[in-house]
Amino acid sequence: MEQATQQKDSNVIYIGKKSTMGYVLAVVTQFNGGAKEVYIKARGKLISHAVDVAEIVRNRFLPDVKVGNILTKTEELDSEDGTKSKVSAIEIKLVK
Amino acid sequence: MEQATQQKDSNVIYIGKKSTMGYVLAVVTQFNGGAKEVYIKARGKLISHAVDVAEIVRNRFLPDVKVGNILTKTEELDSEDGTKSKVSAIEIKLVK
Repeated sequence: MEQATQQKDSNVIYIGKKSTMGYVLAVVTQFNGGAKEVYIKARGKLISHAVDVAEIVRNRFLPDVKVGNILTKTEELDSEDGTKSKVSAIEIKLVK
Repeated sequence: MEQATQQKDSNVIYIGKKSTMGYVLAVVTQFNGGAKEVYIKARGKLISHAVDVAEIVRNRFLPDVKVGNILTKTEELDSEDGTKSKVSAIEIKLVK
């Protein structure tokens, strides 16, 4: 289901090493700033954090936000030793 | 998006502590046994494994299988000390 989705860079939140609540705040800030949709993206083990962020935003902060389409895909990473490794990725669309 | 989904117990794969390929094999076996759809369910940190299983099934074993609806939800767990804790969960529908 790799379909093209219209996204502005500004309303995409990439999950990294920060705390879950840091990303929750980033998503809430996007919506409070007028965004109608926010995309949460994560790869590998961070995928479960992406789901946590979406669930916390919905359940604790913005009950009128709905989870839209969720896409999964496989991305190829270049390792430092020149080999390629595959990693799963997720994109969760939140809609106000 | 907690919507009712029609599932037989037999075509639900719960992700646990086994290896990723063990669950891939379980999903492939379901489809080869005639299942038209298989649900992969996981909670907490195992959510990323569920996405891995879905991606590996699609990319390496059954290219005609598509990822259908993906649902996320929050479940409440009873801890041993009597308190309740919340955990995110995912349900990935694969369709042949």
